[in-house]
Amino acid sequence: MNLLLTTRILGALLLFLAAVLLLPLPFSFYYNDGAWPAFVFSAIICLIGGGLMFGLSKSRAELSVREGFAVVTFGWTFFAIFGALPYLLSGAIPSPLDAFFETMSGFTTTGSTILTEIESLPKSLLFWRSLTHWLGGMGIIVLSLAILPMLGVGGMQLFKAEVPGPTADRLKPRIQDTAKLLWGVYLLLTAAEALLLMLGGMNFFDAVCHSFATLATGGFSTRNASIAAYDSGYIDAVITVFMILAGINFTLHFQLLRGRLSDFHRNEEFRCYMAIILVATAVIMLFNGIGGVYSNIGDNLRYSIFQVSSIITTTGFATADYEAWPVMAQYLLITLMFVGGCAGSTGGGMKVARILLLFKHAQAQVFRLIHPRAIRLVKLGDRPVDKEVLQAILGFFALFIGIFVAASLLMAASGMDLVSGGAAVVACLANIGPGLGTVGPVDNFAHIPAFGKSVLIFCMLMGRLELFTVLVLFFPSFWRK
Amino acid sequence: MNLLLTTRILGALLLFLAAVLLLPLPFSFYYNDGAWPAFVFSAIICLIGGGLMFGLSKSRAELSVREGFAVVTFGWTFFAIFGALPYLLSGAIPSPLDAFFETMSGFTTTGSTILTEIESLPKSLLFWRSLTHWLGGMGIIVLSLAILPMLGVGGMQLFKAEVPGPTADRLKPRIQDTAKLLWGVYLLLTAAEALLLMLGGMNFFDAVCHSFATLATGGFSTRNASIAAYDSGYIDAVITVFMILAGINFTLHFQLLRGRLSDFHRNEEFRCYMAIILVATAVIMLFNGIGGVYSNIGDNLRYSIFQVSSIITTTGFATADYEAWPVMAQYLLITLMFVGGCAGSTGGGMKVARILLLFKHAQAQVFRLIHPRAIRLVKLGDRPVDKEVLQAILGFFALFIGIFVAASLLMAASGMDLVSGGAAVVACLANIGPGLGTVGPVDNFAHIPAFGKSVLIFCMLMGRLELFTVLVLFFPSFWRK
Repeated sequence: MNLLLTTRILGALLLFLAAVLLLPLPFSFYYNDGAWPAFVFSAIICLIGGGLMFGLSKSRAELSVREGFAVVTFGWTFFAIFGALPYLLSGAIPSPLDAFFETMSGFTTTGSTILTEIESLPKSLLFWRSLTHWLGGMGIIVLSLAILPMLGVGGMQLFKAEVPGPTADRLKPRIQDTAKLLWGVYLLLTAAEALLLMLGGMNFFDAVCHSFATLATGGFSTRNASIAAYDSGYIDAVITVFMILAGINFTLHFQLLRGRLSDFHRNEEFRCYMAIILVATAVIMLFNGIGGVYSNIGDNLRYSIFQVSSIITTTGFATADYEAWPVMAQYLLITLMFVGGCAGSTGGGMKVARILLLFKHAQAQVFRLIHPRAIRLVKLGDRPVDKEVLQAILGFFALFIGIFVAASLLMAASGMDLVSGGAAVVACLANIGPGLGTVGPVDNFAHIPAFGKSVLIFCMLMGRLELFTVLVLFFPSFWRK
Repeated sequence: MNLLLTTRILGALLLFLAAVLLLPLPFSFYYNDGAWPAFVFSAIICLIGGGLMFGLSKSRAELSVREGFAVVTFGWTFFAIFGALPYLLSGAIPSPLDAFFETMSGFTTTGSTILTEIESLPKSLLFWRSLTHWLGGMGIIVLSLAILPMLGVGGMQLFKAEVPGPTADRLKPRIQDTAKLLWGVYLLLTAAEALLLMLGGMNFFDAVCHSFATLATGGFSTRNASIAAYDSGYIDAVITVFMILAGINFTLHFQLLRGRLSDFHRNEEFRCYMAIILVATAVIMLFNGIGGVYSNIGDNLRYSIFQVSSIITTTGFATADYEAWPVMAQYLLITLMFVGGCAGSTGGGMKVARILLLFKHAQAQVFRLIHPRAIRLVKLGDRPVDKEVLQAILGFFALFIGIFVAASLLMAASGMDLVSGGAAVVACLANIGPGLGTVGPVDNFAHIPAFGKSVLIFCMLMGRLELFTVLVLFFPSFWRK
């Protein structure tokens, strides 16, 4: 571990944070909300802190794999700590733990909130809140499509063939290339959604904030009632479509812009993702229909597909209180929480590709019993999946379930009930936002005891960074020379 | 698939069942409960059915792997169908589905019951109910220690080195040898427990029935209040010890009888199993203590360790309503439900060895990221675990969770609430007995709709036969020549 180099890079990230902390200023002045000093002071603190850390070392060494892990984990943590300053300095969120929770929830694109009253916040703070999502989403795209594959982690190992292995000298240029292209796509989709939302009557401020939260699959809204506040079929439809888009591998969007529509059809994960959304919506519509939840099929479709898309993509926007739906519909949504979006999207969860490969692996194991001598490769699309990658996915699955169980035990220890505690954990670990019970779509996380909030903050970070990235730091041998 | 041979063997099993159906007769006469005709007629039906099936084919071919799967799955199913006859013919359980549920629960050593009033049943039927557990336990021992390893399934693959691979010609003699030795141990432990229970004041009938249910990790009691009915610290202690013994690999008991005590200490799974029991008991005692559930530490220990042992060994006896315990204690018990006993015991669940190896695999995956070039073998004890076996375990874990999720969805569809539906599934899939919510330790399964009961029956069978054994039958290629 080159600690000096790591510190230098973290310093550079803080300097970047200082710059983006100035972005909410125009809104503060325009709406005259008086919160501008909080941003200026926060920026100054980041500038000083970042400057010191950056200047501490003149190390020009290239980043190696280990520093990569440290930079990613500490980078996200630093952003969540320093990004919480505007909430604290403005007095909008007086508790440091709450402010940290809200910011971690922002940068990890989770969307769980400790705010009980959102609309009374200064506009510039609301913008900052949505911006943390959007920046987090940018981070995730470059992380999952460029950094993690080189560190040997994450669902995108599946596309290893396209990305070279962890060789220190190539890390920098490739990240920059990949990042630029995909951020272009991300920006374009954000702008498109904002425009479409404004066409539906949403004001510029709300349209931008909600587009930030959609493309990042975050879920923070500027309204207490989330998207339900607009009560518009058009807005629901636009957001549904863009949530689904945000849950798709961004390289597919990039290929589409280059005119290669066929990549969508050829991509097995994409087909599976769309199939899950359609089947889940159909089943939930059936049960909502039988249960008489909606009076007409149009409403049933509108609310069912919105909630399904919001949950599977791990966005967490709400237009309906799904806790009032039949138990079967709730259970299906819980299952989707674990699934999550596609690898290489901004969505969280375990990722569709992993679930697909788990299923195929289990099938292959049964097949092997019938044909002990036959060799059956597990494939994704028409490409066989590397055994090492499969092992990693199986390890990820075991870890995800293990962490879910352990964290739920801790939530139970902190006094939460069975359903709410477990739901809060999956809502944070899969970076969704709302859960069930006392943390349902019309509730918030304010009432959770400090210990429980701390557990959830850690869950958000681990879930967002594909578990392994955080867990390596707990191995003593990671820190040894 | 040699269907004729399979039919012949199933016929032989039915003839065996006809014989054991006569075992409750002495109790019927002694207690003069009037149920003897039900057993006689049931035995005659099995005799005729079994005789026809056995006589149908004169096939003297040796059993191959495929017929092995079919015999195991259909054998258990046939036992559950024909074993239900005494309940039906005596009128004690009028509904065929309920009788099938109760018998499947018996032979799979699950212990979930649809009976709302147990003590009013004829004594001979109560004996039969406990006997189904004991026979199921006998089946499981030979299955997990002799048959499944040869078919390439189950936790005992771990000990592959000691058991030769699936070669048809060796199957028969080895099963017989292994079975005889281990059944001796099983019988000895059962007799010892019955004796100790009688020393504590339990009558002969109850002592035998409860010993049957303990050694098989079944959980059917002859009393409505389960073991709580005796309200005796001595009886609780005896049953706690024998539940723990029943959850241990029976080859270890066998080695102990040969004077090799050191095998216990050398066995990593055993050490882990004991550690889980002790730690879980300590944690639950802590939370029960804080929650003021028990007034003194003696009671706290007595009830906590009994419930922990009952759940992790998947027995399902109750001396306390753990739903009145703190949420943390309940959550820990749910977690233990998934864990289950040791491989090669009569306990269900995923088995301690599998959980241990999953954890080690996940750890190895994180380690691999830090040291990409290092080779780290996953070991159990001091022996490296075969990669194929590890793959099978990971596949098993994925399947177990997948089946749990799918079955819980079906329970939700049948109208059960979130907690009760999921708890009913794990209670049956892990062959425990009681769950939570409406199927808690002081409730029963009577109120579940027919569809839900059918799902649970299938879960009991799949869980007991290590999933794979049942699932292969659903592959079309299994049935092809």
